This record gives sequence, C-alpha cells and structure tokens, in this order.
Amino acid sequence: MPIKNGAEYIQSLRGRKLKVYLFGELVKEPVDHPMIRPSINAVAETYDLAVEEPELASAKSSLSGIQVNRFLHIAESAQDLVNQNRMQRKLGQLTGTCFQRCVGMDALNSLYSTTFEIDQKHGTQYHKRLIEFIKMVQRENLVIGGAMTDVKGDRSLSPSQQEDPDMFVHITKRDSKGVYITGAKAHQTGCINSHWIIVMPTMRLKAEDKDYAIVGAIPVDAPGITYIYGRQSCDTRSMEGGEIDAGNVMYSGQEAMVIFKDVFIPNELIFMDGEYEFASMLVERFTCYHRRSYVCKTGLGDVLIGAAAAIADYNGVANASHIKDKLVEMTYLNEAIFGAGIASSYMAHKTASGNWQNDDMLANVCKHSVTRFPYEIGRMAQDIAGGLMVTMPSEKEFRSPETGPLLEKYLKGRKGVSTENRMRILRLIENMTLGRNAVGYLTESMHGAGSPQAQRIQIARQMQLEYKKKAAKKLANVKEGEAAETAPEQSDYFDKIFGTKDKKKVK
Amino acid sequence: MPIKNGAEYIQSLRGRKLKVYLFGELVKEPVDHPMIRPSINAVAETYDLAVEEPELASAKSSLSGIQVNRFLHIAESAQDLVNQNRMQRKLGQLTGTCFQRCVGMDALNSLYSTTFEIDQKHGTQYHKRLIEFIKMVQRENLVIGGAMTDVKGDRSLSPSQQEDPDMFVHITKRDSKGVYITGAKAHQTGCINSHWIIVMPTMRLKAEDKDYAIVGAIPVDAPGITYIYGRQSCDTRSMEGGEIDAGNVMYSGQEAMVIFKDVFIPNELIFMDGEYEFASMLVERFTCYHRRSYVCKTGLGDVLIGAAAAIADYNGVANASHIKDKLVEMTYLNEAIFGAGIASSYMAHKTASGNWQNDDMLANVCKHSVTRFPYEIGRMAQDIAGGLMVTMPSEKEFRSPETGPLLEKYLKGRKGVSTENRMRILRLIENMTLGRNAVGYLTESMHGAGSPQAQRIQIARQMQLEYKKKAAKKLANVKEGEAAETAPEQSDYFDKIFGTKDKKKVK
Amino acid sequence: MPIKNGAEYIQSLRGRKLKVYLFGELVKEPVDHPMIRPSINAVAETYDLAVEEPELASAKSSLSGIQVNRFLHIAESAQDLVNQNRMQRKLGQLTGTCFQRCVGMDALNSLYSTTFEIDQKHGTQYHKRLIEFIKMVQRENLVIGGAMTDVKGDRSLSPSQQEDPDMFVHITKRDSKGVYITGAKAHQTGCINSHWIIVMPTMRLKAEDKDYAIVGAIPVDAPGITYIYGRQSCDTRSMEGGEIDAGNVMYSGQEAMVIFKDVFIPNELIFMDGEYEFASMLVERFTCYHRRSYVCKTGLGDVLIGAAAAIADYNGVANASHIKDKLVEMTYLNEAIFGAGIASSYMAHKTASGNWQNDDMLANVCKHSVTRFPYEIGRMAQDIAGGLMVTMPSEKEFRSPETGPLLEKYLKGRKGVSTENRMRILRLIENMTLGRNAVGYLTESMHGAGSPQAQRIQIARQMQLEYKKKAAKKLANVKEGEAAETAPEQSDYFDKIFGTKDKKKVK
Amino acid sequence: MPIKNGAEYIQSLRGRKLKVYLFGELVKEPVDHPMIRPSINAVAETYDLAVEEPELASAKSSLSGIQVNRFLHIAESAQDLVNQNRMQRKLGQLTGTCFQRCVGMDALNSLYSTTFEIDQKHGTQYHKRLIEFIKMVQRENLVIGGAMTDVKGDRSLSPSQQEDPDMFVHITKRDSKGVYITGAKAHQTGCINSHWIIVMPTMRLKAEDKDYAIVGAIPVDAPGITYIYGRQSCDTRSMEGGEIDAGNVMYSGQEAMVIFKDVFIPNELIFMDGEYEFASMLVERFTCYHRRSYVCKTGLGDVLIGAAAAIADYNGVANASHIKDKLVEMTYLNEAIFGAGIASSYMAHKTASGNWQNDDMLANVCKHSVTRFPYEIGRMAQDIAGGLMVTMPSEKEFRSPETGPLLEKYLKGRKGVSTENRMRILRLIENMTLGRNAVGYLTESMHGAGSPQAQRIQIARQMQLEYKKKAAKKLANVKEGEAAETAPEQSDYFDKIFGTKDKKKVK
Repeated sequence: MPIKNGAEYIQSLRGRKLKVYLFGELVKEPVDHPMIRPSINAVAETYDLAVEEPELASAKSSLSGIQVNRFLHIAESAQDLVNQNRMQRKLGQLTGTCFQRCVGMDALNSLYSTTFEIDQKHGTQYHKRLIEFIKMVQRENLVIGGAMTDVKGDRSLSPSQQEDPDMFVHITKRDSKGVYITGAKAHQTGCINSHWIIVMPTMRLKAEDKDYAIVGAIPVDAPGITYIYGRQSCDTRSMEGGEIDAGNVMYSGQEAMVIFKDVFIPNELIFMDGEYEFASMLVERFTCYHRRSYVCKTGLGDVLIGAAAAIADYNGVANASHIKDKLVEMTYLNEAIFGAGIASSYMAHKTASGNWQNDDMLANVCKHSVTRFPYEIGRMAQDIAGGLMVTMPSEKEFRSPETGPLLEKYLKGRKGVSTENRMRILRLIENMTLGRNAVGYLTESMHGAGSPQAQRIQIARQMQLEYKKKAAKKLANVKEGEAAETAPEQSDYFDKIFGTKDKKKVK
Repeated sequence: MPIKNGAEYIQSLRGRKLKVYLFGELVKEPVDHPMIRPSINAVAETYDLAVEEPELASAKSSLSGIQVNRFLHIAESAQDLVNQNRMQRKLGQLTGTCFQRCVGMDALNSLYSTTFEIDQKHGTQYHKRLIEFIKMVQRENLVIGGAMTDVKGDRSLSPSQQEDPDMFVHITKRDSKGVYITGAKAHQTGCINSHWIIVMPTMRLKAEDKDYAIVGAIPVDAPGITYIYGRQSCDTRSMEGGEIDAGNVMYSGQEAMVIFKDVFIPNELIFMDGEYEFASMLVERFTCYHRRSYVCKTGLGDVLIGAAAAIADYNGVANASHIKDKLVEMTYLNEAIFGAGIASSYMAHKTASGNWQNDDMLANVCKHSVTRFPYEIGRMAQDIAGGLMVTMPSEKEFRSPETGPLLEKYLKGRKGVSTENRMRILRLIENMTLGRNAVGYLTESMHGAGSPQAQRIQIARQMQLEYKKKAAKKLANVKEGEAAETAPEQSDYFDKIFGTKDKKKVK
Repeated sequence: MPIKNGAEYIQSLRGRKLKVYLFGELVKEPVDHPMIRPSINAVAETYDLAVEEPELASAKSSLSGIQVNRFLHIAESAQDLVNQNRMQRKLGQLTGTCFQRCVGMDALNSLYSTTFEIDQKHGTQYHKRLIEFIKMVQRENLVIGGAMTDVKGDRSLSPSQQEDPDMFVHITKRDSKGVYITGAKAHQTGCINSHWIIVMPTMRLKAEDKDYAIVGAIPVDAPGITYIYGRQSCDTRSMEGGEIDAGNVMYSGQEAMVIFKDVFIPNELIFMDGEYEFASMLVERFTCYHRRSYVCKTGLGDVLIGAAAAIADYNGVANASHIKDKLVEMTYLNEAIFGAGIASSYMAHKTASGNWQNDDMLANVCKHSVTRFPYEIGRMAQDIAGGLMVTMPSEKEFRSPETGPLLEKYLKGRKGVSTENRMRILRLIENMTLGRNAVGYLTESMHGAGSPQAQRIQIARQMQLEYKKKAAKKLANVKEGEAAETAPEQSDYFDKIFGTKDKKKVK
Repeated sequence: MPIKNGAEYIQSLRGRKLKVYLFGELVKEPVDHPMIRPSINAVAETYDLAVEEPELASAKSSLSGIQVNRFLHIAESAQDLVNQNRMQRKLGQLTGTCFQRCVGMDALNSLYSTTFEIDQKHGTQYHKRLIEFIKMVQRENLVIGGAMTDVKGDRSLSPSQQEDPDMFVHITKRDSKGVYITGAKAHQTGCINSHWIIVMPTMRLKAEDKDYAIVGAIPVDAPGITYIYGRQSCDTRSMEGGEIDAGNVMYSGQEAMVIFKDVFIPNELIFMDGEYEFASMLVERFTCYHRRSYVCKTGLGDVLIGAAAAIADYNGVANASHIKDKLVEMTYLNEAIFGAGIASSYMAHKTASGNWQNDDMLANVCKHSVTRFPYEIGRMAQDIAGGLMVTMPSEKEFRSPETGPLLEKYLKGRKGVSTENRMRILRLIENMTLGRNAVGYLTESMHGAGSPQAQRIQIARQMQLEYKKKAAKKLANVKEGEAAETAPEQSDYFDKIFGTKDKKKVK
C-alpha cells in the first residue's frame, strides 16, 4: 500500500524501533517530539505537493511504469533535472527550510549510472539490484536518506590508515547472506525521517581501502543503528509552547549523527562491494547533482525577500528608494543562484546507463554562489527588518496581562498593521538569519554538498586553462614551440559547450 | 550571389558611398583605414565561423529554406537561442572584442514577433514585409545593424516635447513611396560594417509621439546619412605601424554616431509607422534578447583568463596558491554570467508569431552581472599581470638596436620564455583592461543593452513581491484582511517557473 | 564609597526595586537570573579592567580631580578619544560581546558640549548641573545608561503629530520640583545593569515638539519604570545548566524595552527642557561619538578570528593556504574598521565647552563598515568551522554514559586535540554567528547607533560634492558661469583635513 | 640658490645630460617633449603648493634649521606623518595623477632610521653622511627619486644565484673614491623628473649577496645611466595637439626603466655597503611608509567623484536616488582608504634615530584597500558617466566645420550645459578609468609599494593568531597544556594598541 500523502507519511513513521538520543535521553516517539516534529512536517510537504501539483512534484517512471514522487524518479531527460529544480524551489517557498529529500534523490540517480558502469566492467549485478530497490520504493512511495559523510578522524590519513578503523564506515564481517558494517556518518540530514538509508563512501578510495567501498540500503530502524540528534540555534523554542517565537513554527530541518555498529546489509541490497575505483565516480556524480540541488535555497530566499518586503511595509518604509533597491539586490542574487542551477540541469548529458547527469562546472558555480549570496541576502533582510528583530520581548510578554497591553501600545507600526503580525514577520526573519532555519539557509548553504573550497577545486579541474591560454596567445600573436601547444586538459567543458570537438580552437 | 566567407565580406564593403568622419576628415575607404579595419576583421570572423563550424554559427531557416548565418536566423526553438549564446561565446574567444552583429540578430527577432502583433491589431502588412526582407538578407548573407539609441536631448522630456524635434529620429516628410527621417543615433555598434541598418524607436511612446514610431530598413550608404567615428582608448596604436603595442592587432570593436538628414525609407521596408503603442513592446523584447546576448563577454573573459594564466606562467608563478585561487575566482565569475545567460535562453517561450523569446528576469540577471564581473575579472588580471603591464616601453624600443638588447637582457622572465612573448601577453591584458578592447569588455558591458539601473528596474518589475510576501506570511501564520491578499502582480515569473498557474501559492 | 571592582559592582545591583519582566513573569533578582547574569558579568569586566589596566580603562578627570573609570570620563583631548577605542577593543576581546557602557559614555560627552551651548544661548544652568551629576557618578563609580531610541509609532509623523502622544517620551506634568515623563524607549542596551539612565530625545524637534525636548537623569529603579526583557537567539541555553552549549557561558549583551509612566525628574537632574532646537545637535554629537565606539566590534572580531584559527588548528587544516588566506582577509576587514575608528578619534576637535569631539565623516565610515564586515567575517568563520558547528549534539549527549563515549570516539579531530575543546570552540563560533552574541556582533552592528542608511545620509551631508566638482572641472579645463562656482557647501570636511581655509581649492 | 617654485623647478631640469629613449629615439629635451611634460608639471605642483600652502606642504627641519619642502622633511612626530597624508591628498586633488615624489620622501625617512642602526652595529658613518646629503637637498630644494625595484630575472633565485648577475643592481668595481654599480630598476616613477636618485636593494639579502647590499645617491644624469620611457594607455593623445581628448591635459605620471652600467657613487654618498642583514629592515620600513603614502589616491578619488557628480549634473540626473547613492558609496570607499592611512600615521612610534615610523598593520590595510576600492570607484564612475564616454568622437570632430555643428546639436545634455564642457568631463573620467591616469589610479594602485599578496603576507605576519586564539579559548573555557599557551608571536601589534605589555591578555 503506497503512502498517499503527508498525513499518511507521518503515520508511517510511528512505532519504529529507532534509537534516537536527544538532550541525553532516548526519544520515545520522534513524531511526537516537539523539537523533531517540524522537520517531519517539512518532509510531509514533499508528499502533499506531489498530490496538489503532480506535474511539478511527480513523474512517470519508465522503471515501474507508474507516476512516482519526483524525489524517487530517475531522471530520463534534461527536463527532468530542470523539474527537480523547480520542485526544489517550490518546496523551499512552502517550508522555508530544508525538506531533506534531495540527498536521497541525488544518491539514487548517481548510483543508477555508477552501478551500470561497475557492472559493465566487473560483470556484477548491482544495477539490476538497484532497479529492483527503486521500483519497490517507488511503489510504496518511501523516503530515502543518503548517508555519505564519514567522520574522517585525522584528515591527513586514508580510511585504512586511521588508527581507529571505524573513522570511515566499513565492512567488519561478511557471511553468505550479506555484510555487516561499522562506523559513523556525521551531518546526516533527515535520516530519522526516512524509511531507508543508502550508505555510500565519502571519497576516492584505493586498493587497500577495499572494505570501505561499500554501498547498500538499510532500513532506518535496523538493529545496530544509533542516532544522536544535532542541536540547532534556537531549537528549544519549539518546546516552549507558543508559536510566535519559533518564527517558523511548522517547519524545520534536521541533522543527526548516525552510528552503525555491525549493521547488516543483505546481498540483494548491496550496490557496491569492493570496487574501490568507482568510489570517486559515485562521489563526483552525487556532488554534481547535489550542488545544483541547492537551488532549493532560492525558495528560502523567496520567503526571506517576502518577509523583508512585508516588514518594510509594516514599518511604513516600503517606498523608500534604498529599501526598494535592497529588495532588488536580494532578488538579483537569489535569481543568479537559480539561473546557474537550472543552466546546469539544462546542460545535462545522457550517461551510459541512460539517465541524465547535469553539467558539473555550472553545478559548482551554483553551489559556490550558495555559499555567499544567502549570507548577503540575510544581511540585507536584517538591515530592512530593523533592530527590533533582536530586542523584541518573548511571546509570553505579548500574552501577559501586565506587559501585553504595553507592547500592543508601544510596538505599533504604521496604521492598520497589527503588532502581532509585525512580531511574527520579525521572528520569521530571525528564524532564517539567526535561528533554527539559519542553519539551513546559511551554514548548510556553506557546507552542504561540499564546502566552498571543494567547489573551487572542482572549478579548477574544469577550467581548461590550456584552452584559454591558446585563445589568448592566438590574439597576441604569440608563437611558441610544439610542446607548449599540446599540454593535455582533463576537462571537456568547452567541447560540451560548443557541441563540437571544437576544431577551430587551437588552430 | 551570397557572400561566402570573411574575405568576400570584406570585399563587399569596398566602394560604398559612405560618409564617415574620423579625426576631422572624411575617410576615403574605411576598409583600408588602419584604425577601422580591425573592427571589420571582427565581423569577418562571423562569416568564417559559419563556414568552419556550421552547427555553431549557422542554422536552417524555415523562412528561406536554406542554411543561413545564425545572426540572420529567426529563433525557431529555445535551443536556437541557446545556440546563439554558444556562438557568441565562441566569437568572443576568437576575437577578444565585440564582433558587432548581435544587435542586428536581436532586432530581427524582436521585430519578427512585434510586427506580427501589430498586424493582428491593425491589419497592417509589416510582418510579411519583414519576412521578405529577412529572406533577402538570408539569401545574400548580409550584415544587419540595428539603430535604436537616440541622443535624447533633455531626458525629462518626451520626444515630441523636445525643443529640437530631432533629438529623436522621426518622420519629417512622407510621400506615396515612403517616408523621410531625420535625427541621430548614438553609440552605434558596427553600423559602418553593416550592409543594412534597421532604425527603431528607443523607448515607450505616446500618441503625440506618433511620428517617432517608425521602424524601417535602410542601406548603410543611403543619401543623407553621416557617420562620425567614436574614439576609443588607445585607438591610434593601430596607426603606429607595429603590432605588439596594440595588444590585439587583428580585432577591435567599433562605435559611431549616425546622423540621418531626410533619409528615405520606401514603403516595403517600413515595419512600423505610427503604431506608437507597440514601441515599448519592441524595445522590451529587443532588450530582453540583447541583455542575454552579453554572454559574448564570457568569451572575452576566457581570453583574459587565458592571458592571465599565460603571464603567470611566464613570470614563473603559475603554481603560487594565490595565483591559482584568483584564476578560479575569475572563472567562477565568468561562468556565473554564462549560466544566467543560457538559463534565460533555455527558459524561452514561443511568441504568437512562432519565434522564441528568452526569459526576461534571467536575461536581466545575466546583464546585471555583466555590469560587475568583468571589472572584477579585469582587476584580478591586472593583479596577476604585474606592474610591467603599464611601465613597459614601446615596441619601437624593442626593435631599436640601442635599447632592444637592454630590454631583451633585463625583461627576461623565467627560463625558456621569450621577452617578446611576455610583452605580447602583457599588451593583450592592457588592451582588454585599459586599452581599446577595455571599451568592449568593460564600459560596453556596463552600458550596452541598458545601464545597470535599467536592469534593476526590470528586475523590480518582475520580482513578484506580493507572491513572496504571501509565502512569508503563510509560514509566519500572519492573518490579514482580504485586501492585503489580492494585491495584483504585473509579472508571471513564478507561473512560468512552476509551469502551472500555481494554485498552491496563495492558499 | 565608590564601587571598587566587578564584584562590588555586582553586589551594588542587588536589592533594587526594579520591575523587570521576562517570559511573562516579574524577575525577582536580575543578578541571580541565569539568563540575565552574563550581561551583568560583561559590565563587571569594565570595572575590573580599570583596576588591572588603569592606563587603558581609567583616566584622571579634571572635573572631579580623581582617577575615574574611562566610561565616566569627559574627553579632554583627542588622545582620550583614541584611548576609548583602545579600551573598547580590549573589552570586546575580554567579553566577546557588548559590554553595554558606551552609550552612557557617549551620552555624557555629547551632553557636556551641548548643555554648554544651550546655556550660552538661553542663560540656563544645564551645564553646571551636568557637571555636578558627572562628579557624583565619578566619585561613586556608577554605571550610566543612555536612553535615546523612542518607539516612534508612525514614522511619517513628528512626535507631536502622533495619534498617541506617548510614541515619544515627553513631559506629561511639571511642578516646582521637576517634571514627569511618559513614553517608551526601545532597544535599550544594558539599562537594567546601570545605576542611572539618562533620557534624551531621539531626533530633530520643532517648536511644537517642545515637551519632547527633555533630557534628564533618573535612577534605574525610579517609580513608574517598567523593563521588558528582549529575547535573543539561543538565550535560554543559559538556563539549561551546562556550560558548553551556551558558547560563551560567562558573557552576553542585554536589550530591553523601557517604559516610563509619569516618572519624575527633579530640576537639578534636568539637562534640557524645551530647547527643542538643540535636540538635533545632541543627537548628532551622540551618534558621532557612538558610531566610532563600534570599534568595540574589532575586539569581538579578534575573538572570532581566534576561534576560527583555533578550530582550523583542531581540524588539522591550519596550514591549508585557503584557510590562512581567509584568516588574513578576516583580519584585514577587522583592522579596516579599527583604522577608520581611531582615525575619527585622532581627527577630533575641541568644542566650545572644552571637551573633544571626534570626526564625523570617519565615524560614519567606521560604523558603515561595521554594518558589513562582521557579517563577512562571520561568514568566513563559519566556512572555516565546518558543518559540525550546526549538527553537533548537545552537551548532555557528551555527558551521557550512552552517547558520550560514542561522541568521544567519533568526533575526534587531529591527534592531541580533545573532543571537548573542539566542541567548545565550535559553540563559541555558533554563539557569535548565530547565537546570543550574534545579536551583538551582527544585528547590533547593523542597527546600533543608526542603520546603514543613516550613515549614508550623514556621509552625503559631508561629502562636499561641490568642492570635488570644482577639482574635476579645473583639471578638465571646464569654464562655467559665476553661479556654478559658488554653490554653497554644508560641510567643512576638507577645511578640516587640510588645516587651512583651503585658499587654493577653487582657484 | 634654492629652487623657489614650480617654474624654477621646470627650468632646473633643462639642459641635463640625460639619456632618455622614447619610441625608439633619444629625447632631446624631456622638458619640451609633449608626452613627458605633463609628468613634469605634476612635480612642479609640489613646489607651488609649498609656496601657497606652507603649513600643508612644507615643514621646519631640525636638521637644516630651515623651512623645507615636506617631501624633503624627516618626520619629527606622528603629526608630521599625518601631514604627509594631508599633503598627498591635496596634491592628488590638484593633479589628478601621481606627482611622483613620495618614493623619495619615504626613502629618505626609512634610510634615516636604518643608517642609524647600521652605524650602531657596525660603527660606520652612513647616518652622518645621509644627514649631510639631506641638508644639501633641503637647502637647494631638490627632487629625490628612489630606485628600489630590481628586474629580478628568475624569481626563484636570489641575486647572487642568477645566471646573469645584473638582474639585481650590484657593485661591479670599487676604488678608493667609491663604487661602480650595474643593473636595472624597473617601474621607476618620476626618476627623469628628479635631481638625484637613491639606489636601494629590493629585498632581504644573505651573506653571499653582499655586493648587492648597496645604497647610494646618484645625480640623475650621471654617466652610465640610460632611461627607457614606459608606455601608458592613451599616452600619445598628448601629442595630438588638442586638449580635450587627453582628458587631463596638464598632468600625468611617469614610469621608466633605469639601466645602470658601471655608474659611480662616491664614498660620501654611500649609505650602505655590504651590511646585507639590514636590507630587509630598509625595505620593510620603506614599504611601511610607502603603503600608507597611497593615501594620495584619495585625492584622485575626490577628482573622480567630482567628475562623476559633474557629469550626472550635466546629464540632468543628479537627483536620481541611485546616482546619489553611488556617489555616497564612492565617497565611503574613498574615505575608508583615508581613514586607514592617517590611522597608520597617527599610530606612529619613534625610532632609535629619532624620526617617526608609522604603524605597519594599518599601512598594509590602507594599501590593500587601495588595490580594490579605486577599481570599484572607477566602475561606478563609468556607470554614472554613461556610454558616451567611450563612443564620443575626437576633439577634431568638434572643431571641424562639417561635424562640429552636428555634434553641438546632437550631444547637448540638459539645458544650460555646453556640449564642450560635457565632453571635457567625460574625457577626464576616461582618462582616470581607461586612459593615462588610469595607470596611476588603478594599476599603480594595484602594484605600487607591493602587489596585494605582499600586503597579505605582511598582515599575516602581524595578525597575532596566538593572541587571538587565547582570547577565544578563554571565553570558551578551553583548557590546554602548557605548550599550547606559549607559542611565540612575531608581532607586537596588540602591545602597541593597548599601550601596555598587556598583562591581562594571556591570563
């Protein structure tokens, strides 16, 4: 029986045997925990949107032959990738936070092409297994989490060189039915809200790291898994009882550390096992998809721009030229992210497996902007909001018979604006620039899918300096020996752009 | 007989009855003028590229049924618009300057849809006439210049309010065969290198400006036209005889003022005559195409990045981490422009006439970045180049028996690098950041297709603050009266993005 | 008996009749409230520093003839103003937050010169009264808060035009002994931690606003005053019992709304009463001092740079070139603020009253940078910190026997670094970029002493465009009529810089 | 007989035996060369200003006991250093270009303290000799050029390791009367316009580089010196005869390569000879002075801001809010440079020799901003100027009877503005952002006194990360072993700021 909507999804999470720790205690039922629930609500939106806007948030899958949630869909065209971006922006607008399902979507898509190529080389059956798994989750309409980031220990050492072998998730035992893994994944987004986790290696591996080259699917409540819930700025406001101070009372993101202790993966759910030379391909394809998935932040940007416009209106300064100019600048920055993201999706190519992979250079440009522009948009939102955003009393003061009337009297904005509405918008801006969703809008924008330097490295790999040097030297009439003109390039970005093997470029 | 390549194109320009003034004198033959010729060479590249890379720089036209130069092609799909961007970037790489043909291409395309809609309303024949004109220029393979920017006089007054009626081009006389126009167009790119000029109004017009609502095609050497050539930084270096100091000796842009004194346009070449209410539609569609055409600057950016990488190599500092980091930053900025441009092209829609129009928001984002990033790329190129770029002696010193050997001795870079090659690359960087092509790479990037404030106005028009405010208020649980929720929006950007009428957004 | 140190200061706060509301309840003893206490600790540091570094944090006052806390000192030289900046930076380093005493210091100094000039014009006695007040607080070594920012109501209306007259603090009653005031001041920093509050008008007033032109000193626990404590991001972490999660467990800032209901000010403590035309002078002099006082943020910047350097070290990446480069950039930005601030202090002039006033242009430049650079420094600190900063479990997990060992195992950094220390530094960075002291380091930097647009207006007033236009026209050999050359200028910035009446400038 | 003013100065340059090459030919008389003369005019202004504004541009010297040009004055107080900055800004306003005398001033001051310390260690007589030299040039009122930057050859090798020993200036011969030097100095500013050149080493030297450790004074027309004049953007416009197109017809900078072939320095003019370990001290003190001397660019900034304001006025858009906002931003950036520069001067300390040395950290902050902000100011000036700046016809067209009236008619701005004046201002903006003085305002701002990376290295040396880490760790309650707490620091910046040995900082 597939899950049909958000409410059924939330119901499906109840009663699992999860071991989740928060504030030093085991959480009885995450669904009912006031600090966890908003992150579940955000995922629920991904179900409801698929019902309400099926063209946006679902797709017909050639694998299962049915209309599936887009987060479970393998991209069959560049347009499918563009549609992911559209859906991501929309969900960003609807939740104002991280809705936690992109990792799973991007993991399935990168595994789809990678397993195909592993099988081609090694004669393995991973691709077929994966397809079966995908068809199952499509039919049942489940949430997939992806677990990639190991805790890493000493960063100067490879997985097998670590003093403690558990610094990267690895196989500790194997039998005829499958393998057992141990280790921990940090910064895991939305795993507790998923039905399945796909475990993947986090970086390029060598022959000696073979036991670390493991990919497989695991139910989130499999024996041996421990979740330790991460703190976020202002997280406990959800537990205070009111609804204004949280800023965005309905939705939030979720981060946890996931610890595996001899967790079993049966053979039919293993999608890589020892083919270490494919680890980097998997990671690169995943990050290529995922860096462009950060287009979701333009949806959050829309909310924050809207909140800034609303508070300017409430403050009676909506027509001040400097306010309008700041709103334009915020929009320019936000759309610049969007443009780079969908350009990356549009410029996709078909992989050997038949699914579509977006452009890597533009995906990195998109994510790199995401590590900068939301901070600037946030700064301008704070500028427009005014200082009250951080000096305003608590909701309890508003509700109190002693202080409530004083605040009602003294915190009035322009005529016709209710004090409470003004407070609500200010708390939303606080939520997105300092509070709980600032984690998603700012810090996660910085580090998710790779920190800024990771994008710079990837841009450097693809920037084809030799090609560009030749173009410059030709115009400057520089003549050099043969050697200088044949330096190899590792990237084919310009071949891709110009759609030819570019005969002209080195004439 | 169509023009077949660059050489034939250059030949086709000879012997025209052009009245071109430069340095106070009539130019005998622009083709042979050393300061003008590089701008002609740049246009010639648009012909040669169509021969060498037909998929990139030509297209099959449904109008004439033949393979035509892409600059003369009416976009029949979003992909056609993307291909324009690809070609523009390539030509930027090949010439390192403005190749001057985008205005004509964008003018034909915006006129194509606008004339169709004028005819629909007024029962006129402009669209058919235009198609005949396009078929002719496609067959003969001609260069079309577009003349839009009037000199404007007092900017606070409309065309018909000006003290001197000639501040905007307008009809001064009409007879049964056609009309006569007078006025001047400033900042005209490449007109002298064109075969035909299409004259268009420059802004929104009112009923009283009817005589200013004139669009028509005119041969560049029609009686009554005077060209006054514009100066550019370092322009006379082309006349000094050497080839190093010019930096890019082969190619340059071209700007002129074009003055019309009772110039005749026959009826069959008139594409608008008095339908003043369509002037703004034409201008907006043209600037929408044209702001995205500034993707060409990424080709120049490629050259400048290549030059910076080359000089870093010659200086022996190519591996310094701060140098590599600057090259990455330059690339990031350059590709950010490219991403926004092609995203705008990909997100095109079909007009009533059947051709395709790119997305306006993203076109403005693209151009707005163009008003900023090339300056920063140029700054970093100067950083990498070192001070020698602006303290280096002239080519004549290098060629002199007295000083040549001294320079050869003292201006050596790292081993294996010729002093002359080092100088050549430095002069190219000077050319693009201070010299003649800095006009094209920097100042034209600022003002061409509209100055920064023009893009901000256009972004403001489309930013849908009401939509965004609703998204924010929903998350903050703000309840307001009916009025607040029905404020109209002039833009449908989000409808376009989400591909639906977006039922969900205001729930 | 003067207060001698921080401990005595804290003791002096006990047992006052303050009416402070927080979370809907009256606070029994602010000194013992875990959420308020850190803000008191920060003020206590200003006492201890005066003991430990007397040259930095105290000064010999000519008024009382004794060595006084520098926050109570009237600047007797430019060097005194520079010394304020030095002390501010030091206290920023020692507390990592807002230590809340600058408003009082800047209020006393601006009142000192303004009362002198009121007296000169009106024959009043305000200056003498003020001196007596200052001598008293110097002798007793008390904390002075300044209350300037009214709640303002409808910003398009002046104080006397408001529907509710209480939107600005004003006199409601007067008798032979003094006056009674009503109204509210928002965003009041450290008032609860002060012994006296000085109430001042917030903007330029007109004749009809006479009752709003009131300045006076009031004990913080005077009858009729109600304080409503403001919320800050993560404020309740101080109440959770641990000491890691708060990030900076010892120190914080404090913001409150202060509501006056018929509060009495005796005649001898009134320093302005009806001289409305001096309100703008007072405000301008105060903001001139205060915008430069934001040099304190460079001390916070030092802490954040240090925290970023420490975490880079703990993560084992201290030698990565991009990390070092970011630390340099953070330092550059931080010192740029410092440079502008002390330049403003050094370029001070003596007022008619004999105290010293810093330069206004540079004070505004300093504060304007403060509205930008801390955000960028914060962004880079988050970049260096890594994602763990926002995904890390709570201190309770670290202390728990179940999860503690798991975290100890999996969150190890490089060899020799304790997991706890790594967590502590990450929480400090969170505290300063998202948490409680992000309010002080970021949002208060934006809005304190005036929002960015306020500085731009002030810079515009002083930028002497006419002077600059003349300089340009002279070099361009522009000749114009007489009128153009005599446009008046409201600023004398260049006269001040060049130390002459600048005869040469307009030749 | 001292030189008394600019006119006498120009006269004093005539008839020297200089060997200057330009465009492949020996220049007969530089004073009369139209391309060189504007650079001489700029130096002449430094004489006239001393006459007209003696407090600004001259000082009483304790060495000679007379009032001397400030460029020849040894700083006797921090105020003297501040006054240098004031004079520099003024001269920047008066000339709109590089007036070329700061190198000499900064060389004399850094030599003053360095020779004193050499003598202290080695018992040499350099300081006394230098004083005699200074007294002589003060009495005769001469221009001193400083020659520091060697051509450097292969940058990975030290002077004595170079294949060609002449890549750094060095002693080739010595006799009882003095030494003979050979080598070349690149990027030499204003040397041809000087009376004396002081040759100095360009970097840290080792024992084996002893022959490169030579400092001495040489008359500019000494036998064996060859000057090769550097090209600048648009340099030949000075030779075209008109006066509009040059933009700033009166003033320009000057760069040349200076080649020494066995040039003699008599013993009494040698100020260092073999004391290689003092080379880095000299270079560091010189660059410390000189990086702060770039405050001159704020004077150029004033001119460019003025030009932008003037053209906005001529274009009739002076009141547009975005124009005003850009002028404010330009001013903010310009004053931020000024603030850092004078802060560095104010925070000076007295050297062992008795003269004053400015603060190094703030000098580097000042110069680092100079490598960024003028580019942004220039970009905004181009934005305000409009496209006409780069499409405008030549002055000859304006003067021509055919085209002049057309331009007069069509290039009118708002009423009351002459077309010629509009053109003049546009050419001035072109001059400063693309043309000849863009070299001084932009590229020299980038590379003069060290390229950006040089400042970053120097900032890194002084940023005291250990100090800052301790401050952070104290607030985070981090406890570490002894070792961590005693890491040494090479800088004493904070000791200097806090004016104490800062006992508190590491508690």
